[in-house]
Amino acid sequence: MSAKPICLIIGAGDYIGAAIAKRFASGGYHVVMGRRRGGKFAPLIAEIEAAGGSAQGFTWDARQEETATEMFAHVEDEIGPIDICIFNVGGNVRFPILETTERVFRKVWEMCAYAAFLSGREAAKYMVARRRGSIFFTGATASVRGSSGYAAFASGKFALRGLAQSMARELGPQNIHVAHLVIDAGVDTEFVRDRMQQAGKDPVSLPPDTLMNPESIAETYWTLHHQQRDGWTHELDIRPYAETW
Amino acid sequence: MSAKPICLIIGAGDYIGAAIAKRFASGGYHVVMGRRRGGKFAPLIAEIEAAGGSAQGFTWDARQEETATEMFAHVEDEIGPIDICIFNVGGNVRFPILETTERVFRKVWEMCAYAAFLSGREAAKYMVARRRGSIFFTGATASVRGSSGYAAFASGKFALRGLAQSMARELGPQNIHVAHLVIDAGVDTEFVRDRMQQAGKDPVSLPPDTLMNPESIAETYWTLHHQQRDGWTHELDIRPYAETW
Amino acid sequence: MSAKPICLIIGAGDYIGAAIAKRFASGGYHVVMGRRRGGKFAPLIAEIEAAGGSAQGFTWDARQEETATEMFAHVEDEIGPIDICIFNVGGNVRFPILETTERVFRKVWEMCAYAAFLSGREAAKYMVARRRGSIFFTGATASVRGSSGYAAFASGKFALRGLAQSMARELGPQNIHVAHLVIDAGVDTEFVRDRMQQAGKDPVSLPPDTLMNPESIAETYWTLHHQQRDGWTHELDIRPYAETW
Amino acid sequence: MSAKPICLIIGAGDYIGAAIAKRFASGGYHVVMGRRRGGKFAPLIAEIEAAGGSAQGFTWDARQEETATEMFAHVEDEIGPIDICIFNVGGNVRFPILETTERVFRKVWEMCAYAAFLSGREAAKYMVARRRGSIFFTGATASVRGSSGYAAFASGKFALRGLAQSMARELGPQNIHVAHLVIDAGVDTEFVRDRMQQAGKDPVSLPPDTLMNPESIAETYWTLHHQQRDGWTHELDIRPYAETW
Repeated sequence: MSAKPICLIIGAGDYIGAAIAKRFASGGYHVVMGRRRGGKFAPLIAEIEAAGGSAQGFTWDARQEETATEMFAHVEDEIGPIDICIFNVGGNVRFPILETTERVFRKVWEMCAYAAFLSGREAAKYMVARRRGSIFFTGATASVRGSSGYAAFASGKFALRGLAQSMARELGPQNIHVAHLVIDAGVDTEFVRDRMQQAGKDPVSLPPDTLMNPESIAETYWTLHHQQRDGWTHELDIRPYAETW
Repeated sequence: MSAKPICLIIGAGDYIGAAIAKRFASGGYHVVMGRRRGGKFAPLIAEIEAAGGSAQGFTWDARQEETATEMFAHVEDEIGPIDICIFNVGGNVRFPILETTERVFRKVWEMCAYAAFLSGREAAKYMVARRRGSIFFTGATASVRGSSGYAAFASGKFALRGLAQSMARELGPQNIHVAHLVIDAGVDTEFVRDRMQQAGKDPVSLPPDTLMNPESIAETYWTLHHQQRDGWTHELDIRPYAETW
Repeated sequence: MSAKPICLIIGAGDYIGAAIAKRFASGGYHVVMGRRRGGKFAPLIAEIEAAGGSAQGFTWDARQEETATEMFAHVEDEIGPIDICIFNVGGNVRFPILETTERVFRKVWEMCAYAAFLSGREAAKYMVARRRGSIFFTGATASVRGSSGYAAFASGKFALRGLAQSMARELGPQNIHVAHLVIDAGVDTEFVRDRMQQAGKDPVSLPPDTLMNPESIAETYWTLHHQQRDGWTHELDIRPYAETW
Repeated sequence: MSAKPICLIIGAGDYIGAAIAKRFASGGYHVVMGRRRGGKFAPLIAEIEAAGGSAQGFTWDARQEETATEMFAHVEDEIGPIDICIFNVGGNVRFPILETTERVFRKVWEMCAYAAFLSGREAAKYMVARRRGSIFFTGATASVRGSSGYAAFASGKFALRGLAQSMARELGPQNIHVAHLVIDAGVDTEFVRDRMQQAGKDPVSLPPDTLMNPESIAETYWTLHHQQRDGWTHELDIRPYAETW
């Protein structure tokens, strides 16, 4: 069992999730991560360990109830009590409504909301019993605003927000901090810079800090988790200074 | 083929859906209705016909893509072009988060949002081709506000709202009127009056018009569909005068 | 005293207010109008009378409490009980925050919100006594969304919305219908077409119904006032089908 | 001139404002405070100085443009460049709409929104010139929700929110961080505990952390000001864990 508090991150991909992992590891947490292809965690774990932290990763399909039940039990029983659970699975797709297949619509919801429900409920199961813990969900612009071409994604992200808000109202009085973070802009990734280049824009000449550094986002997760319980935040937006919105 | 314009109502149950059916029938529409147990339509159709209107009903599981595709094709090919499609399927359940099964969470979403997507997309397919038509979705308080005990229902209704808003932004410029009606109170039904009695309240001595008459709601669907296209409403709330909100 | 029900419109300018006046006059109301320059009402009154309706207008500075008190008393005592009061005063200005004078900021609020408060409170005074009546407020995109350059206007329109929402929650149970209509686009006026021409766009070649016809907006005020009280709408948006939002 | 960065707090009363002052002083800021009765600052300044910090206070009527202009110039010219300006003036009153005098309605707006505009604009004047700084506004539940009895207060607080949102959209790209903090519950003050006692509730037996400690709120102002500019938050809510909302 870990002597450190546990930070569980579901959907710990290459950018935001990885930055959150590094932030909590450097803050003294043992970080447990899940993603669909758990084999890709090795370099991130190596980086965390090189910096003196500790982390481990699992192959984890967040859309499977059985996986959720078993993995939460495993973490709680074998690693330690989860102090904070962060649900960070994406699902951003863009299709005109007439080209949105039922498979896409369903899958986006499963990633955005159904997996969040499974993770949130399992986390709550353990946290309610000890009346302590945080459950954070990563939202997006599409969580608060539908747009042309985003019927599937906005529907999935709205669903996540309704879940988060209901859980906050139910679990707050049981001392569980449920938060929903609306990340409203592009994170600085190769993918985003490639897409800009294809659109004829030069990502190299961008003014500094125009795209988001995942580390800045991660810091807000960290400070939110450390709010005193007499002054909890349920929802906030995050965007770069230069963003027009 | 019907000589009248077609009003298709999916989720035409006993109350709001039935009132909408009667309103459009009396206004000169041929009303086509779908619900899971199509055998229950007989008295409603008889009532509509006795008043000089015309209507027909189908057994229609709105959560099946195949049913959606086939039934829309059937209505369009055999009955007439759909002028307005109203999605009115419910899904109101209340469970603490820890008692919300994955089956309930999934099923509520399927009723609230997935079925709405299937119906809305099929309706749009025909309407976009002729650049004309209305698609209306029935929302609830839980569409705009999560609450303790409503994680599943609020998540499903938020999902519907994100879908409706995205479709409105995409399809408005193609001359399709997409609206989302937030019905924020109890409709005057036996079920609601029974529940009040069980809660020790006397539904007989309620001040008049404290509960909603489905006919009043139906009238708003009617007037909304008859807005000129240079002044369309996408979203509105409906509640009784005496409601505290 | 008028035998007809009274529709009072404060801020009955040349476009939306005038269209509302014509709609209620043709629907059997005696229309009483106020604006800062009452001398400009003559052609509108002539048009209403030529169509068989009746209307009268007053010079009315809606930002003066004494005027509000006296004019409401005059209408109620000399003309008839006000059935609906529509507050339609504008105030749209655009300035960078550093160029917004305190005079502009104050004046915009006086037009958008302070005058609305005076009118709404006076209307409520008479309506609460007889437990009957409607009070409608005209909002704008800036009522629900602040934007660069709109600090004064958005602040004024947000203030109006907070007033309207509070009045609705207080007065609804007293049988007063308080509504807030968010008009989210340009109305088809000479001013808007001139501005388009100056911006190098050709207003003549616009697709039809791209700008709003005030009559379409007026129709929504009319239907809203005729909702049954067990199904009142407090807030709705209005925009042309082709608008991107 | 101060060698420390300057934190200016307008409306630095006894609770939230004082806690913010102490937080920024302990974090190395020189704190400048304004309130209508500047004579009351002495004990707070003594407390800050005893803890090794530095602060000074002014009698400052935030609703006077001349005062705003002169005081900002004085702080900038004589004390140092303002790094963060926090507007924290209250204005919470409750009256039925028919008992809301024009004086109350106007005064509440002057405190909530007009004074905020004067302070925000003056702060922006200096900050835009050096493209650096933060401007934070304190909101309340009434900023996002009108309620019966709160026509004046909700109108004033909505007005503040529209101002803050517009300023954020305009000034963000100029590297000014504009934030709006929605404080959604009672702060733990003698006034609140007295009011509870009068209402027959026993404030002594309240579960711990049910009321907000101003220090917890102050910490969120502090962390918000220290966000990296590629991940700024514009709006967040703050409430105790046990609050029902």
